[in-house]
Amino acid sequence: MNEQFMREAIRLSVAMMRRGKGGPFGAVVVCGDRVVGHGWNAVTSRNDPTAHAEVMAIRQACRNLNRFHLEDCEIYTSCEPCPMCLAAMYWARLRKGYYANTRKDAARIGFNDALIYQEVARPKSKRKLRMAPLLRDEALKAFAEWESKADKLRY
Amino acid sequence: MNEQFMREAIRLSVAMMRRGKGGPFGAVVVCGDRVVGHGWNAVTSRNDPTAHAEVMAIRQACRNLNRFHLEDCEIYTSCEPCPMCLAAMYWARLRKGYYANTRKDAARIGFNDALIYQEVARPKSKRKLRMAPLLRDEALKAFAEWESKADKLRY
Repeated sequence: MNEQFMREAIRLSVAMMRRGKGGPFGAVVVCGDRVVGHGWNAVTSRNDPTAHAEVMAIRQACRNLNRFHLEDCEIYTSCEPCPMCLAAMYWARLRKGYYANTRKDAARIGFNDALIYQEVARPKSKRKLRMAPLLRDEALKAFAEWESKADKLRY
Repeated sequence: MNEQFMREAIRLSVAMMRRGKGGPFGAVVVCGDRVVGHGWNAVTSRNDPTAHAEVMAIRQACRNLNRFHLEDCEIYTSCEPCPMCLAAMYWARLRKGYYANTRKDAARIGFNDALIYQEVARPKSKRKLRMAPLLRDEALKAFAEWESKADKLRY
């Protein structure tokens, strides 16, 4: 069963690469014994740097299930996730993941997530992408309003 | 000028929270002196755990500019980015960022990105979200095909 789902993720990675959608990456989200989300890399065809296979599969699964958490779901991805996709898996509360190709395999064909993994782990003052603080006092008011908002929907 | 852009990000964070779109977060992507992408948190209203303000602003900016890299752009976000958004900023190749509220401010109102930052920095064998290897040999074929693909578009 597990292998069947991974084969579907790999099949997507190949089919969509051949159609020129983007890099050779596919993923499926599975709930029980059913695929509820399909995803493939569509960065270059959609002009969307966030359109990685795992993000796309999570988004489709949530749309299909009509909810924003996937605690009862697992993800099968044809390659170990990058930090963006891994963090998305946490936000979606997926309970488990399976991967086929490794980060090292991906680096060997020119997809080097290692730099981003290193950067995310660094304190912000040490990162290549500089982040400067600005107008915190004004933004804090928005947070205070959220705190006191009676009908807020937490996630 | 900088302050004007940040005020727009903060304005979005408040306006969209009040309309029930999601958490109190807004962002804008700026190219030169022009806002080319607006984003706000829409996790709960769109059933999309990846619909954070920064991701939405990056996606809109790329759509508007019709390209998948934003080397000449900066992002203004009403709160320090989570690891998903930070990694998305690297994939988009944004050249600089500005933030108002801090991660600690966000944690104080119940948005705790710290756990995800810790998890992303861990080796995969130590993470709470377990990832199991499966069918690497079959997936490697997709990578080999990418390697030899003549018309591939790198990103």
